[in-house]
Amino acid sequence: MNANLSKIKVGILGASGYAGAALIRRLLKHSQVDIVAIGSRQYQAEPLAKAWPQFADLLNLEFVDNEQVIEKSELIFFATPHGVTAPWVNKALQAGKKAIDLSADFRLPEKDFEYWYKQKHEYPELIAKAVYGLVELHRKEIVGKNLIASPGCNSTTAILGLAPLAFNDLLGEDIIINIAASLSGAGRTLGLGKHYAEANENMRPYNVAGNHRHTAEVELSLARIKEMGRDLKSIDIKKRPIVSLNPHLVPMTRGIMVTSYTKAKADNLNDDVLLEHFQKFYQNDPLVVVQADLPNTKAVYASDRSIVSVRYDKRSKQIVTFAVSDNLAKGAAGQAVQNFNIMNAFSETEGLFLEGIWP
Amino acid sequence: MNANLSKIKVGILGASGYAGAALIRRLLKHSQVDIVAIGSRQYQAEPLAKAWPQFADLLNLEFVDNEQVIEKSELIFFATPHGVTAPWVNKALQAGKKAIDLSADFRLPEKDFEYWYKQKHEYPELIAKAVYGLVELHRKEIVGKNLIASPGCNSTTAILGLAPLAFNDLLGEDIIINIAASLSGAGRTLGLGKHYAEANENMRPYNVAGNHRHTAEVELSLARIKEMGRDLKSIDIKKRPIVSLNPHLVPMTRGIMVTSYTKAKADNLNDDVLLEHFQKFYQNDPLVVVQADLPNTKAVYASDRSIVSVRYDKRSKQIVTFAVSDNLAKGAAGQAVQNFNIMNAFSETEGLFLEGIWP
Amino acid sequence: MNANLSKIKVGILGASGYAGAALIRRLLKHSQVDIVAIGSRQYQAEPLAKAWPQFADLLNLEFVDNEQVIEKSELIFFATPHGVTAPWVNKALQAGKKAIDLSADFRLPEKDFEYWYKQKHEYPELIAKAVYGLVELHRKEIVGKNLIASPGCNSTTAILGLAPLAFNDLLGEDIIINIAASLSGAGRTLGLGKHYAEANENMRPYNVAGNHRHTAEVELSLARIKEMGRDLKSIDIKKRPIVSLNPHLVPMTRGIMVTSYTKAKADNLNDDVLLEHFQKFYQNDPLVVVQADLPNTKAVYASDRSIVSVRYDKRSKQIVTFAVSDNLAKGAAGQAVQNFNIMNAFSETEGLFLEGIWP
Amino acid sequence: MNANLSKIKVGILGASGYAGAALIRRLLKHSQVDIVAIGSRQYQAEPLAKAWPQFADLLNLEFVDNEQVIEKSELIFFATPHGVTAPWVNKALQAGKKAIDLSADFRLPEKDFEYWYKQKHEYPELIAKAVYGLVELHRKEIVGKNLIASPGCNSTTAILGLAPLAFNDLLGEDIIINIAASLSGAGRTLGLGKHYAEANENMRPYNVAGNHRHTAEVELSLARIKEMGRDLKSIDIKKRPIVSLNPHLVPMTRGIMVTSYTKAKADNLNDDVLLEHFQKFYQNDPLVVVQADLPNTKAVYASDRSIVSVRYDKRSKQIVTFAVSDNLAKGAAGQAVQNFNIMNAFSETEGLFLEGIWP
Repeated sequence: MNANLSKIKVGILGASGYAGAALIRRLLKHSQVDIVAIGSRQYQAEPLAKAWPQFADLLNLEFVDNEQVIEKSELIFFATPHGVTAPWVNKALQAGKKAIDLSADFRLPEKDFEYWYKQKHEYPELIAKAVYGLVELHRKEIVGKNLIASPGCNSTTAILGLAPLAFNDLLGEDIIINIAASLSGAGRTLGLGKHYAEANENMRPYNVAGNHRHTAEVELSLARIKEMGRDLKSIDIKKRPIVSLNPHLVPMTRGIMVTSYTKAKADNLNDDVLLEHFQKFYQNDPLVVVQADLPNTKAVYASDRSIVSVRYDKRSKQIVTFAVSDNLAKGAAGQAVQNFNIMNAFSETEGLFLEGIWP
Repeated sequence: MNANLSKIKVGILGASGYAGAALIRRLLKHSQVDIVAIGSRQYQAEPLAKAWPQFADLLNLEFVDNEQVIEKSELIFFATPHGVTAPWVNKALQAGKKAIDLSADFRLPEKDFEYWYKQKHEYPELIAKAVYGLVELHRKEIVGKNLIASPGCNSTTAILGLAPLAFNDLLGEDIIINIAASLSGAGRTLGLGKHYAEANENMRPYNVAGNHRHTAEVELSLARIKEMGRDLKSIDIKKRPIVSLNPHLVPMTRGIMVTSYTKAKADNLNDDVLLEHFQKFYQNDPLVVVQADLPNTKAVYASDRSIVSVRYDKRSKQIVTFAVSDNLAKGAAGQAVQNFNIMNAFSETEGLFLEGIWP
Repeated sequence: MNANLSKIKVGILGASGYAGAALIRRLLKHSQVDIVAIGSRQYQAEPLAKAWPQFADLLNLEFVDNEQVIEKSELIFFATPHGVTAPWVNKALQAGKKAIDLSADFRLPEKDFEYWYKQKHEYPELIAKAVYGLVELHRKEIVGKNLIASPGCNSTTAILGLAPLAFNDLLGEDIIINIAASLSGAGRTLGLGKHYAEANENMRPYNVAGNHRHTAEVELSLARIKEMGRDLKSIDIKKRPIVSLNPHLVPMTRGIMVTSYTKAKADNLNDDVLLEHFQKFYQNDPLVVVQADLPNTKAVYASDRSIVSVRYDKRSKQIVTFAVSDNLAKGAAGQAVQNFNIMNAFSETEGLFLEGIWP
Repeated sequence: MNANLSKIKVGILGASGYAGAALIRRLLKHSQVDIVAIGSRQYQAEPLAKAWPQFADLLNLEFVDNEQVIEKSELIFFATPHGVTAPWVNKALQAGKKAIDLSADFRLPEKDFEYWYKQKHEYPELIAKAVYGLVELHRKEIVGKNLIASPGCNSTTAILGLAPLAFNDLLGEDIIINIAASLSGAGRTLGLGKHYAEANENMRPYNVAGNHRHTAEVELSLARIKEMGRDLKSIDIKKRPIVSLNPHLVPMTRGIMVTSYTKAKADNLNDDVLLEHFQKFYQNDPLVVVQADLPNTKAVYASDRSIVSVRYDKRSKQIVTFAVSDNLAKGAAGQAVQNFNIMNAFSETEGLFLEGIWP
């Protein structure tokens, strides 16, 4: 193990949010990382345990402002909201630091960003430099880069469940993506819908029927796979499939289940053939488990792995795929650290948690 | 209010199960009912409160065997498992009693039953006499009948979410039905998947891709609507649409959310047009709420109403419908009592709970 | 059933809060009530279903301001926060209306109020006129009164669990009250501790060790029982027992469990003797169930009854009592309507829900 | 890091239970351990992932029978039920293996075992050799031993919350221990009370008033502290304090909250003095966090640490202590591995998880 001096000095912005806590958990045990600064507007000058009692006595840092985090760090994880993150990423890059951005600010081509996020993008030149950090599809492109746009939680899970179909030209004309998402995905901010007494024993759809922003990431990734196969580049593709992505909140703290549907174009399909496509596609991916059994979200609770499975509905000719992730793990912090590892040529799973907490 | 003598003497089989408790709750407050006998194999000779502490001091009955329930009652609710219910229904009818069956034993034509339930049906002649008790579609047919087959919880909710589309010839070639169901739907029996520590913070698909039995009820009902419009008869229809029905367990005690998808055949759709179709279709139905807002399952927690809504996804041309029920209420006991009311020409909502418990 | 004209015109302040919804649920089915106005600062001019989708189509009212509610009503339920309620109660009484106050503003003698709520009381003369509405203890005093101070949820449950011991002079020198309370008890306001992702799978103590305001109600009630026996008057008592009341939040939407401890002063106790004391004490109380079995909170979920039980720990000589309530039912709205019934000489349980929702 | 050959060959009995999964999770990442065999009656000859999907691809073992586990291992963790474990421990020791027993079979003197567990103990001579593995109190005694009796989850948490009081002679005559425990504590076996639809939104007391077996561990430990101070020996003590220990099930997957009460014997107490006693007592214990803030169970979710805090209730003179653990971590597998580390002179926290999962 290296001495502290040779470790990478890492800072975290938005460290008092859920993805922030998940980043700290992983980076604390990462053999090549020294967490040097944590940022939070709300908890400034407070010790870490004020926001996160679970870290009492484990990391002796106080929250500081964004400038200080950037100054002290060689590489910064941005777990801050979309829209406000881009300027800080720009500052970090200007100062010669590296950036892994968990927000949506650099995931999409400028036009798509402006369409889905309904705001102008102030740093379009940085979009061009950013790599879309879905490691399983962009692994080679990530190595050595300075700016990673870590994908959204729903996008990640949806793309992992559909990528082998896209790769094998099995996507039909219609693609339905039905999502069940947990309350932590809505962030550590307040809102009536997140009140325990409102959310418990309740399930509700939101941003359905073409209104969820993660739609764009999914369509673009599927288009890239069709065009480039497996080793994708983060370039724009004009001709993209259209998906209907429909999320629902379920009373869970963590976890995403994505059930996707597309109609078979041919007649020779069955469960085994489909499963084999999935197994081949992910055979070298340590963070994607392909299994014949239908997946449970609990198997990836607090785990940085996703599980995918697939079924063929002979009666309706629908190919039905299932993908589960922990939205804060493979859907956020885990994937960000996975990107960090690939950028820096560390072992892909260093600092990560492979198994889920069950029960 | 009538004196006890003129009330209908009602018995409940399977009274120690979840639908049984929900039936007792409704029939206790029904002005035209006298609960005279409750059946349970497991709790025989025990007082009601042994199985159900919530009824302590409220109904002074002990569980007895099925024969006694049938003997003492004029009308029997059967909240017993499919497969074992039919012979008891037969006995009741032979003895001149009326039957409302919450099991699946008389919901389907003989062939469909044998295909989906993988067993021979011993009383096919009774199937012919049974009315499929989805009141909103079969109201006129139910009046005065002796045997009602009360629909399944998933079927009820799915059909209510799709019926206005079928009625207005808006169903596309492909129909996807994505279901999230709660743990009470799995019954009061034991199983590892129902253990709190396994089910909490967990979501998992089951019986997907053409393997869920409620599929047949949905397809048959949609076919009947296409053929007969609104006032359906419980007859077989050979030509039926095929749906892909895919249920998932979510960590909730009660509630079903059904999200259905079908592609628009024409281009002139929008949210308002669709909503109007729904409003017209259900304008005289006291137990179906049509609303523009997306529905929450909590709004029907312990309520005998369903809520439906609809959206048009312009990008993908998918019509997306949402329907929520309490699986033990409109999905089981509430609907059974609604059938009881229609059979006997009582007010449709007598004994029922209209509003949900929130929070 | 009376025609509408002869019903009591009832208004509800704070109708967009949890106790407000529970009041509407009960008053809607109350045969002697016409709900004429509902107040809410936050939802003013919005229809009821905007705040409470579960009531869609069931009560055609919009939220109005407090003045209008008072003006239109003969009797007003105040489900508004302590501190701000007293002036409105004063206005209502000045205008000749009756008031049932679910807040803490009139439950305690002036000095106690100022000590525990750390604010001056502006209407001490009204405190003198208010009756403490724990019906089981003050039933006779409530009849015909104009101002009822409906007790707190924790206080109600704790007092019901200890009253038979106080009545039979079985309270030892030390009295420990350990409380587990649910998230709805914290109100429909926002706070990080109520966020689903913070509250779920979490339990935490709060306001312990002499810091919970409900302590005063419990001590005063136990003192009154010692002095007056069963038919209490809402007068001050100087000499009171001291209790240590310690609440904890548990991840439940509804429900309170109070476990109380006091050491036996004599040696001749056992479970049966204690149970008999409890049964005798509550023999004429339709909303208190005494049972030998240990109680579950689920048996009173959405029910207006409390369940109490008692055990004698021979080894330690501790008398351990258990009491469960739904904090929004017997702990709030149910008890308020129970008071309404007693005030007006209606049946004590009119409009109430006796059995709990299980599952 | 050592090569595999120099690692300790470890086996786990009861590996398909909850403590078993938690042991695998810790031992998988333990630098000095090679898991060589896992035992399960129920899953025999099945791969690990059949019982535990979260470990898919992470440990390539099948479940075998107990004999094989013992034969292949140098040290065995016994996560099997009390009563059936002792004979297997005996076999393991006879074969020269070391044993860490998570069951209750060797925690108590023979007489106490027979009183509380209502069965004869067949291996009383092994009780004499067993060390009670509450590391914070028995650390020195554990080093180099062959048989560790790892404490119960409730006992561990209760003792940690009271030990500093016992050590400083602050325990009054009466000691009340109020426990809230989670559903995983009831094991991975079936039972109606563990059904999600019965346990969710429900809280219920069980084995109260002198009927919970963990009582004996607590009383004996408090007696030992009084007699020996801090470095305890696992010997019998006749004169013991009597506690009233009262557990309740709460709807959580993991976690224990213990709230304990004892009356101050002197008048000079306050929060600060008490807190200082706790801080001093645990100053060298890496798995016990002492904090001024009241503890949350979530801060130790999946963590091997306990958090303790204390308050003085001036009004009632009660000292109130709070202790939280994850019943499967510090309450079971984490403590067992902590014992393993101390036995073998490894770092005390090797293989353990210090921080909790939040949210």
